[in-house]
Amino acid sequence: MAVSMDDDVPLILTLDDSGSSVSAPVDELDREELPNENGGSYDVVNDASSPAARECCAQQSSARHNWEMNYQEAAIYLQEGENNDKFFTHPKNAKALAAYLFAHNHLFYLMELSTALLLLLLSLCEAPAVPMLRLGIFVHATLELFALIVVVFELSMKMRWLGFQTFIRHKRTMVKTCVLFVQFIEAIVVLVRQTSHVRITRALRCIFLVDCRYCGAVRRNLRQIFQSLPPFIDILLLLLFFMVIFAILGFYLFSPNHSDPYFNTLENSLVNLFVLLTTSNFPDVMMPSYARNPWSCVFFIVYLSIELYFIMNLLLAVVFDTFNDIEKRKFKSLLLHKRTAIQHAYRLLVTKQRPSGVSFKHFEGLLRFYKPRMCARERYLTFKALNQSNTPLVSLKDFYNFYEVVGLKWKAKRNREHWFDDLPRTAFLIFKGINILVKSRVFQYTMYTVVAVNGIWILVETFMLQGGNFFSRNVPWSYIVFLTIYGVELLLKTTGLGPVEYLSSGWNLFDFSVTLFAFLGLMALAFNMEPFYFIVVLRPLQLLRLFKLKKRYRNVLDTMFELFPRMASLGLTLLIFYYCFAIVGMEFFAGVVYPNCCNTSTVADSYRWVNHTVGNKTVVEEGYYYLNNFDNILNSFVTLFELTVVNDWYIIMEGVTSQTTHWSRLYFMIFYIVTMVVMTIIVAFILDAFVFRMNYTRKNQDSEEDNGIVLEKEISKEEVIGIIELYKRTSAATEAAQLQKIVLQMDKYGQMSTVFLGRRSRTKSDLSMKMYEEEIQEWYEEHSRKEESQTPLQEPASASSSSLKPLSLRQRSQT
Amino acid sequence: MAVSMDDDVPLILTLDDSGSSVSAPVDELDREELPNENGGSYDVVNDASSPAARECCAQQSSARHNWEMNYQEAAIYLQEGENNDKFFTHPKNAKALAAYLFAHNHLFYLMELSTALLLLLLSLCEAPAVPMLRLGIFVHATLELFALIVVVFELSMKMRWLGFQTFIRHKRTMVKTCVLFVQFIEAIVVLVRQTSHVRITRALRCIFLVDCRYCGAVRRNLRQIFQSLPPFIDILLLLLFFMVIFAILGFYLFSPNHSDPYFNTLENSLVNLFVLLTTSNFPDVMMPSYARNPWSCVFFIVYLSIELYFIMNLLLAVVFDTFNDIEKRKFKSLLLHKRTAIQHAYRLLVTKQRPSGVSFKHFEGLLRFYKPRMCARERYLTFKALNQSNTPLVSLKDFYNFYEVVGLKWKAKRNREHWFDDLPRTAFLIFKGINILVKSRVFQYTMYTVVAVNGIWILVETFMLQGGNFFSRNVPWSYIVFLTIYGVELLLKTTGLGPVEYLSSGWNLFDFSVTLFAFLGLMALAFNMEPFYFIVVLRPLQLLRLFKLKKRYRNVLDTMFELFPRMASLGLTLLIFYYCFAIVGMEFFAGVVYPNCCNTSTVADSYRWVNHTVGNKTVVEEGYYYLNNFDNILNSFVTLFELTVVNDWYIIMEGVTSQTTHWSRLYFMIFYIVTMVVMTIIVAFILDAFVFRMNYTRKNQDSEEDNGIVLEKEISKEEVIGIIELYKRTSAATEAAQLQKIVLQMDKYGQMSTVFLGRRSRTKSDLSMKMYEEEIQEWYEEHSRKEESQTPLQEPASASSSSLKPLSLRQRSQT
Repeated sequence: MAVSMDDDVPLILTLDDSGSSVSAPVDELDREELPNENGGSYDVVNDASSPAARECCAQQSSARHNWEMNYQEAAIYLQEGENNDKFFTHPKNAKALAAYLFAHNHLFYLMELSTALLLLLLSLCEAPAVPMLRLGIFVHATLELFALIVVVFELSMKMRWLGFQTFIRHKRTMVKTCVLFVQFIEAIVVLVRQTSHVRITRALRCIFLVDCRYCGAVRRNLRQIFQSLPPFIDILLLLLFFMVIFAILGFYLFSPNHSDPYFNTLENSLVNLFVLLTTSNFPDVMMPSYARNPWSCVFFIVYLSIELYFIMNLLLAVVFDTFNDIEKRKFKSLLLHKRTAIQHAYRLLVTKQRPSGVSFKHFEGLLRFYKPRMCARERYLTFKALNQSNTPLVSLKDFYNFYEVVGLKWKAKRNREHWFDDLPRTAFLIFKGINILVKSRVFQYTMYTVVAVNGIWILVETFMLQGGNFFSRNVPWSYIVFLTIYGVELLLKTTGLGPVEYLSSGWNLFDFSVTLFAFLGLMALAFNMEPFYFIVVLRPLQLLRLFKLKKRYRNVLDTMFELFPRMASLGLTLLIFYYCFAIVGMEFFAGVVYPNCCNTSTVADSYRWVNHTVGNKTVVEEGYYYLNNFDNILNSFVTLFELTVVNDWYIIMEGVTSQTTHWSRLYFMIFYIVTMVVMTIIVAFILDAFVFRMNYTRKNQDSEEDNGIVLEKEISKEEVIGIIELYKRTSAATEAAQLQKIVLQMDKYGQMSTVFLGRRSRTKSDLSMKMYEEEIQEWYEEHSRKEESQTPLQEPASASSSSLKPLSLRQRSQT
Repeated sequence: MAVSMDDDVPLILTLDDSGSSVSAPVDELDREELPNENGGSYDVVNDASSPAARECCAQQSSARHNWEMNYQEAAIYLQEGENNDKFFTHPKNAKALAAYLFAHNHLFYLMELSTALLLLLLSLCEAPAVPMLRLGIFVHATLELFALIVVVFELSMKMRWLGFQTFIRHKRTMVKTCVLFVQFIEAIVVLVRQTSHVRITRALRCIFLVDCRYCGAVRRNLRQIFQSLPPFIDILLLLLFFMVIFAILGFYLFSPNHSDPYFNTLENSLVNLFVLLTTSNFPDVMMPSYARNPWSCVFFIVYLSIELYFIMNLLLAVVFDTFNDIEKRKFKSLLLHKRTAIQHAYRLLVTKQRPSGVSFKHFEGLLRFYKPRMCARERYLTFKALNQSNTPLVSLKDFYNFYEVVGLKWKAKRNREHWFDDLPRTAFLIFKGINILVKSRVFQYTMYTVVAVNGIWILVETFMLQGGNFFSRNVPWSYIVFLTIYGVELLLKTTGLGPVEYLSSGWNLFDFSVTLFAFLGLMALAFNMEPFYFIVVLRPLQLLRLFKLKKRYRNVLDTMFELFPRMASLGLTLLIFYYCFAIVGMEFFAGVVYPNCCNTSTVADSYRWVNHTVGNKTVVEEGYYYLNNFDNILNSFVTLFELTVVNDWYIIMEGVTSQTTHWSRLYFMIFYIVTMVVMTIIVAFILDAFVFRMNYTRKNQDSEEDNGIVLEKEISKEEVIGIIELYKRTSAATEAAQLQKIVLQMDKYGQMSTVFLGRRSRTKSDLSMKMYEEEIQEWYEEHSRKEESQTPLQEPASASSSSLKPLSLRQRSQT
């Protein structure tokens, strides 16, 4: 039985006046009798172990069992806080809990992901398939049905966990169910008819991927895109409005000129101004009228100045502004959500007797569920790091730092500075010398010089080669010389710093891998393995090391690495849009474009493929654009990328249009607008991230050198022995054995205590915490005011506590 | 003799302890004897009226003369503060003052501007001239010499004012002098040889324009561009670096393919990747390799993702960030500069007897010099608006608001609400009815509907017209109907609101002018004046009125209007760059490109001009690109605009390159980079302005409705009469007469006081003041701390006071 809001109220009251429990309601008094224990969380046997029954017996095992339940629920709350899952999806009973646990582990997540990927990849093999991967209709339809059945299974687990009521209220899940239903019917139809029909609905398969646990970032991006839409659309309308005005104007001005094919009808005028917005047809669209009257260029200059240079930037400004605002609001809501989660968890861990904090025993129990792979030492260190007071209890205020502390990786602080400190004297001196050499500026700058010389060498060498066979059998000596230098450097650094310290720096890792690649390239050259020659070509990457020299580059590259996960998720979001458009494109335009297809259109040249015979030589005149087609999904992706880059996209559009109807243009124009949205958001994101980072650097110029969050904690021998005793009492032998090792280590070096360092890399959230420091306090106060105003009324109407209500009702009926 | 820092110090001391002047130095005691007067500012007769001499005589006329001098110097200080002129250019003696006054009025500024423009416009008529404007060498060289002589005169005035020392220390002026010298010699050479030589130095003529007083905004832009350069160049290097790496890679990968002309040499590889960065050659550059191996698209996708989508955005981020930072610093320094100017002026206006503030008499004297065209009423109102205390003196604290208050336009607050309040009853009721009608929502929305219907009508009408003669003799009836409706609306609004109130709104002004244009168009149609037909085409502009409907659009358009001056100055800055490049382009590439010029190059098609005869019809095949040439300055501007838009710019580059050397590419590449810088800054500016504005709106959501700064001041009859007395005493009859009118007005309506409203539009500076409210206080404190630490030491080493030092030395030697 969960500790509901109603149940919590007396506990919080007790926190304030722990002495007097006279006015406490019934279940408060009941619980007083249970020493050290709180109300258990889930009833495993549904109604048998009612609180009354439990409390009368007060058996040790039952109590412990109840505690275990509390630990688990607290861990679930903390997970929900971390994943930003709303609390109304919190499992409500033991059956739901079982389903929750089943649906919340990496195996299940992987299954989700792989079925989603399988469904998406099917489009490689379906109807307009990639030639090499073509499968029979029976095969791919069966595969599809199989994947869909797996999805049905996943959804049923989710329903079990959420309950029917919550399930049908959850929008995304409902959309997924509908799509699943449609896909199911269509797959069966395909199987029965043994032929594919026009299946644009395949574009909806993306939702299975988006709904995956691992694609949370993509979901967030999509939400952000949709939230940015309203202001975006407003400005887009302004853009289109001016376009229409100029189209009418252009039609009136230029259609009398019969040699001007761009403005001869209003439709052409509109389409060409749309294309002009992307600058794709720029000087060409102006040329016929410009040739007639030089002043007509004013029309185009004004149009481009207004549309391209003003309104398009306005679009960026509006999106950037909305983006900024959303980012801050998102950060705020997540922060408060986490805080609420911590409060929920805290309530479940506090005992009646000592309501002012959580003891290590209970904290350890929580961590066993929250992070099963954490070792005993780390659990204790986490507890210690949380505990700011001298008491053995962690107060709520300290507990609020849970998420910041739990991610730390703990390591004993080395007493020895270098890895070779324990070696004999002579060896020590040698290694020490290497260490000093490697750390010296002279060595570093020598290496930079070598890299620079190598770069120039490569450039000159490449410049001298004018065509011909680059990869001669004999490996060039310069290659060997430079590789030797890099190898020696690598060796020196590894020995001087120790392999662990060497590889802990990202830059060294980069050096290492580039040198390794160069070595592999040498091997490929030496043993004449032609397909691996491309590795040789990667040599210039070594030059990237030069960018370590300047602080701004280091900053940029660091930010780049920090941004990478987010960038990847944005890229994935873009790919999802691509997928949808690729499916639609394939259904409508597959096989439409081929060499010499469009001889009637204005872009015939680009699609031409002519085989002249001049004299006795065959000259092939190729327009190549027929390659930009929608014949299979891979081709479609490349074509869509070309459309994204925007240049000359109108040739592709006109080619397809000339073979189909002129409504096809809508497809291309909508695609342009969609990619414009996504691209603008990507730009806004990069802008925001860098500007944020630079502001942060400016604000904290003194503390710029630290990399990551570091915490130091000292543990004395007595403490460890105490913890070992505790574990022994609870018969946790493995944990006790782990801790015993620390004691042995201390004995070996004759220390009374050991210092441990907790480390983790800094996340965007840490940066935001520091940037919004002042505002955060306001948010907290506002939030706690809001909570207080809700709690006394006994009406937890907010979503965060609504799930707890039915339980409390049930509980009341039992007492 | 200026009131030097040494001279001011005792005065400030007196401000603190006005009772005890025992410890005051000698000139402090001297001045005590001069009643009500401070030390005069400039010695008209250079050394005769030394302070000692003056103070002994203490004649009334001399005292007034001294005061006049003080007023003038204070006004100059305030002007310097407003124009952000550094104080070391402050005129130091009477001769310098005369030159200063000569060089600081609109006639002189106009002369400056017109000579600069004349010099720039000369390039329309010089060697590769616009055909219609060609002038003989003798004519244009003489004109040039004349303009240069005027510049010499201007410079000599400036030298007189600044003094030789300051003159040669002022960088911009020195550069201007050098350019002038070179231009002079070249102009004489041209005159003597009677033929133009390669005069790239003509590109430097821009400096004459940049140095104009009226082009201050352009100078600021240029400074901002140069300040943004260092981070920009860093990222640019990163960009170029990746370009080189990819060029080497591309050369190795694609040069074995002989049908691929893009990567056959390293130089081609580099150039094509540079063009690819602008996406101008995008699918084409990929096609030959893509046709061979579909996977080669990965190379291009990776390249574009890194370079175009990442680093280019990074560039924007860095520039945006720097821009933001510079804007804030600029605002800060200007604010502090103004504050210092006000302090300087204040010191000159305070009397020994009443050192706690400036009396109206002296304030009035200041305004006479600072704003000669201000009337007596406004002077007094300004004084009243400044004066926050009840004393008749304006303290320094109040005086700090000088710049905010002095720009207000004062108007008596109307007692009557409408313009027709004084009319007879019947007329009043009619007009009142119209007023209510015009202000009603129904009327407004009816008009919006009419506009929308009109828009759709025009669209449909235009769509129906497919070519042919648009402008038939008989005017279409729809045109007349809609125009009548608009006319009636205009009439109703003018009568209902009164013409003054009607035209005071920007939107109404817009309506009015569009309707007027439509009417003119109708006239043109009716009387068949063909050259004015284009006015008819402006009809759709009426549709812009629809954008009043939504708040976001109103915001956007308001911001647009606020931005307009700044945008214009940025545009002018861009034009200056264009001018430089146009001159260089003309010198090198004039006449290089012509029809069928480039048959050996890869872009031959675009330059083709063929006159087929198919059957009995003549078909002209035109590539048109030969029109994008550098044959005269107007053509060059259009060509440069095409290069700015970037699409297909490589065709222009390759055309020119094929006719000259391949070093010409440098010109085009440098131009691309320069426009990239300027464009990025324009984008950053628009971004910054809009984000700033939106933040501001978000911060002040309650006070959004007010438009501009409004201040209310009540003046009683006694006050006015007192002021009249004052003016009569100083025998300023015109001022007294002006004020007498107010008294008469009051008598007429039987009021004892009148309320005046001061109004001005809000500037960016006002917004910034509100946004940085908290920080501004810190800046002030920091600034005053800095000043205090300098003043007691008697070593005013900062630039703001260095000009005052030599004078104080002279003064000391005299006492």
